[in-house]
Amino acid sequence: MHAYRTHNCAELRASNVGEQVRLSGWVHRKRDLGGVLFVDLRDHFGITQIVPPIGSKAFEILDKMRSESVVTITGEVLARDAETVNSDLATGEIEVKAMEVSVQSATGDLPMPVFGDAEYPEETRLKYRYLDLRRERLHNNIILRSNVIASLRRRMIDQGFTEFQTPILTASSPEGARDYLVPSRVHPGKFYALPQAPQMFKQLLMVAGFDRYFQIAPCFRDEDARADRSPGEFYQLDFEMSFVTQDDVFAAIEPVLHGVFEEFANGRKVSAAPFPRIPYRESMLKYGSDKPDLRNPIIIHDVGSHFVQSGFGLFERIVGEGGVVRAIPAPGTAEKSRKFFDDMNEWARSEGHAGLGYVTRKGGEFGGPIAKNHGEAGMTALYDAMGLGPDDGCFFAAGKEGQAVKLAGAARTRVAEQLELIDENVFEFCWIVDFPMFEYDEEAKKVDFSHNPFSMPQGEMEALESKDPLDILAYQYDIVCNGVELSSGAIRNHRPEIMYKAFEIAGYSQADVDENFSGMINAFKLGAPPHGGSAPGVDRIVMLLANEPNIREVIVFPMNQKAEDLMMSAPGPVTAKQLRELNLRVVEPPKE
Amino acid sequence: MHAYRTHNCAELRASNVGEQVRLSGWVHRKRDLGGVLFVDLRDHFGITQIVPPIGSKAFEILDKMRSESVVTITGEVLARDAETVNSDLATGEIEVKAMEVSVQSATGDLPMPVFGDAEYPEETRLKYRYLDLRRERLHNNIILRSNVIASLRRRMIDQGFTEFQTPILTASSPEGARDYLVPSRVHPGKFYALPQAPQMFKQLLMVAGFDRYFQIAPCFRDEDARADRSPGEFYQLDFEMSFVTQDDVFAAIEPVLHGVFEEFANGRKVSAAPFPRIPYRESMLKYGSDKPDLRNPIIIHDVGSHFVQSGFGLFERIVGEGGVVRAIPAPGTAEKSRKFFDDMNEWARSEGHAGLGYVTRKGGEFGGPIAKNHGEAGMTALYDAMGLGPDDGCFFAAGKEGQAVKLAGAARTRVAEQLELIDENVFEFCWIVDFPMFEYDEEAKKVDFSHNPFSMPQGEMEALESKDPLDILAYQYDIVCNGVELSSGAIRNHRPEIMYKAFEIAGYSQADVDENFSGMINAFKLGAPPHGGSAPGVDRIVMLLANEPNIREVIVFPMNQKAEDLMMSAPGPVTAKQLRELNLRVVEPPKE
Repeated sequence: MHAYRTHNCAELRASNVGEQVRLSGWVHRKRDLGGVLFVDLRDHFGITQIVPPIGSKAFEILDKMRSESVVTITGEVLARDAETVNSDLATGEIEVKAMEVSVQSATGDLPMPVFGDAEYPEETRLKYRYLDLRRERLHNNIILRSNVIASLRRRMIDQGFTEFQTPILTASSPEGARDYLVPSRVHPGKFYALPQAPQMFKQLLMVAGFDRYFQIAPCFRDEDARADRSPGEFYQLDFEMSFVTQDDVFAAIEPVLHGVFEEFANGRKVSAAPFPRIPYRESMLKYGSDKPDLRNPIIIHDVGSHFVQSGFGLFERIVGEGGVVRAIPAPGTAEKSRKFFDDMNEWARSEGHAGLGYVTRKGGEFGGPIAKNHGEAGMTALYDAMGLGPDDGCFFAAGKEGQAVKLAGAARTRVAEQLELIDENVFEFCWIVDFPMFEYDEEAKKVDFSHNPFSMPQGEMEALESKDPLDILAYQYDIVCNGVELSSGAIRNHRPEIMYKAFEIAGYSQADVDENFSGMINAFKLGAPPHGGSAPGVDRIVMLLANEPNIREVIVFPMNQKAEDLMMSAPGPVTAKQLRELNLRVVEPPKE
Repeated sequence: MHAYRTHNCAELRASNVGEQVRLSGWVHRKRDLGGVLFVDLRDHFGITQIVPPIGSKAFEILDKMRSESVVTITGEVLARDAETVNSDLATGEIEVKAMEVSVQSATGDLPMPVFGDAEYPEETRLKYRYLDLRRERLHNNIILRSNVIASLRRRMIDQGFTEFQTPILTASSPEGARDYLVPSRVHPGKFYALPQAPQMFKQLLMVAGFDRYFQIAPCFRDEDARADRSPGEFYQLDFEMSFVTQDDVFAAIEPVLHGVFEEFANGRKVSAAPFPRIPYRESMLKYGSDKPDLRNPIIIHDVGSHFVQSGFGLFERIVGEGGVVRAIPAPGTAEKSRKFFDDMNEWARSEGHAGLGYVTRKGGEFGGPIAKNHGEAGMTALYDAMGLGPDDGCFFAAGKEGQAVKLAGAARTRVAEQLELIDENVFEFCWIVDFPMFEYDEEAKKVDFSHNPFSMPQGEMEALESKDPLDILAYQYDIVCNGVELSSGAIRNHRPEIMYKAFEIAGYSQADVDENFSGMINAFKLGAPPHGGSAPGVDRIVMLLANEPNIREVIVFPMNQKAEDLMMSAPGPVTAKQLRELNLRVVEPPKE
């Protein structure tokens, strides 16, 4: 018989009754029912009920054994009585009569229990992560993460991609977030940086002729924590392809994302590929965001034209001054109280906006000051234009375009939440496309890049030479699921002459470009293919699938929000010798 | 038609003749044969011959195009004449008549060519790695590496292992090699360390109940470069299992290693699993090494007993003083000149040894001073004991055991190389097992751990309490292939009381252990399963399969031997602001 186990704790069935078996695992739960001792023995796979004969040595040992001790049980598989069969448990038809118990590891006091659903402070959970990880929800999240990543890999390979490991000790990026630095011992005063993303490397892999690259890539940003971003490190499904158009990129990754979501959706619905492609400007109008949550059925309308001449003076003035009015329908709100509408207005003010106007409607009758002043005919025309019905209310965000869009987007989300219009059981994907290449920087009073200067402008050189820069779109795209941006991506600008021209429009000389991006530019002068890609966030994909709002629930050993690993006590002090080897001295931080 | 390609450059066959196609790729080679221009167009997949019609615009463009420019060719597939069919090329039956050429990227002067086998200085190759990576051998090595890793992953998952990503920003290790440090911005004066291996994390995953962990794990050591070790980062197939004996570990990983070697052996033979298990002491005797190359058929013999009384006074004295004599057969050397044997002796002296004695034998007749002094009867008895024949020579390494073993091992390798006894077309695996737990430290005059203090001693507590420490073996093992150590591994000591006792034997108090290894010890007090694992080096596996002696030939973007990335210019200077944020100052290194 094996030293530790003949079966795991999820394996035994009625068909094993009568067999001599050996199991090992953790003492999950003990129950003493009138002198009979029941022990739930747990391992990675499941739980088996152990019953030691009363008066036996096994009973004595198990009776004293504390929760979470590790034991090996040798005994016989017994059938349970019909009335004690537990159909919730894979092994619920049987129990094991313990003839022999050996203790592998006896626990002392537990800083937190494993059995049960009690909430524990995050500090305790992170310090004793190995205990927390034994709890069912977290254990399952981490296994889900592993399975999602394995599935992503398999699907990428099936799509003809090859995984490469790009360096982790590399050079500081010329732009982006803050780098983590690694002092060089061999080169005093010089530092490596950990990659914020393997962007340069993946593009150089295309220049090297590898055609289709991917990597489950560790990325590092020394930024403060957010709920959806881990301090320190995070993972991307980084990929890049040569000789492709934007549609090729979409066609390559859609089956991967759709497939992995379907695989782990657990009954939730996943939007079919191809995913909708929504131009940036349309998204900002209809959803008030470039990360639209398409589970939300509300569509924002641009209704400024209705208020050019209106009895409602405020909107008339706003429109007259070049502002906009955006309408956010609140469907089926005939029975909602005045308070519902007023609270929305209060909320908008609390968020720093001037306010959120509204009209109510019940049985076709409009209510509220805007309706009163704008007049019934005007209101009816407005409603008809939007396709709203006799019992639908409507909110209005008005003002300068930027602010009104932001408010309309936030109001769209809040209205849908309040009215419970969001279907929690679907994953709705979309691409946001046609981002503008340039924008006007009000502060610097000049045209600048809106997003990524290295994306290919649509129309290439001809567009740069002939169009108003603010009208030029880029081959740049985001993939969004349920309002969460999974990734930005682009067809890259692989032509030095077009890159110089684009930078010139944004006010940079060829010398500036050569100085800051020489590595990339020089490579592009030695034979670069057209290429593009993207990098969906792995942690975010797992958060969506696990339905966890906090990224620390889907990472096996996360840091806390202060970028500390409480279990390993990192970061920690180092020795004088280590600092000396690195030619560094720690300087006291300035007193606050 | 697709903007860039309807087919890749390895796809077209005779069956495509007559089709209109589009191909994109690099101008690999141009040949002008009596005014006819042949262009080899290359992409990741292969090469296709392009022929532009004489006098056409396409001809004009291609004629001017420099090597490694990227072009898109539109044209018609033509069958080649029977005599110009190239059977070495997958596309050798056809060529493409270029009707249209568009230039995606025109190259300037190349710092090194891609076509051809000319050697280039490593500095140039690393700086322009994206060019070097286009060359067939390196391109193939990198794809081999990717395929090996994908295969390892698939095989590990098939064996029931789950991959986890352990942290890269973590704590400094209490022992081992030098850490790379990462200063914390948020916690002034404190540092993260990059993991030398995820040893602690994988053991804690077992404590967390995950049963079977693996990871293609990036590891970091700030050590100087060696041919088989990259400065900076390297990858391990890191794995760990719960509730296992040493045999279970072997049984889990043998099919993975055997399978992956078989898959990529390309006709070379791979030793069948189970691999031989050779006790450490046996290996040191028979092969003079704990990393034996089993392709080498020579077996070392311990022949000291033959020289207790001998006409050869030197060996008699050495044996009398407690030294050893080891014999290294040199089979089939009857026709070798005296110089062959004398050169071996010279070589041994040049390596710092006292010398390498020998006897020659031809047609049963012994030669050389040892044979002469030891006498024919004695020599015959010695040869019979070793099973040597009438035309076999033999070398002798004599002296204190440690030195004699080392010399015997090196001589065994050298003799086999000189005699060409090593079969280059096999992969011979073995496990080295039963490493001693402790050794006597001559300098400190005390017993200390020989290898890993955290391995489980064979016989556990009982052995520690009852045996001479120097007789205690550990559940510690190495896997070796063709003389290359792929990995160390062990069944871990998961019992705090046994760990305290083992450290006590090596002269450390319980307080010492608690202070230095508190994280691990505390976790083991909260329910730890028996567990063990190993971590075969991925880079070394690929080096063996690619038959590359230099690790930089199997890493896509390696650093040079001075730990510099010449392509990305890492490490590099950082700004004063970056240093200020990290509360660091660079100190001038002391003048040499």
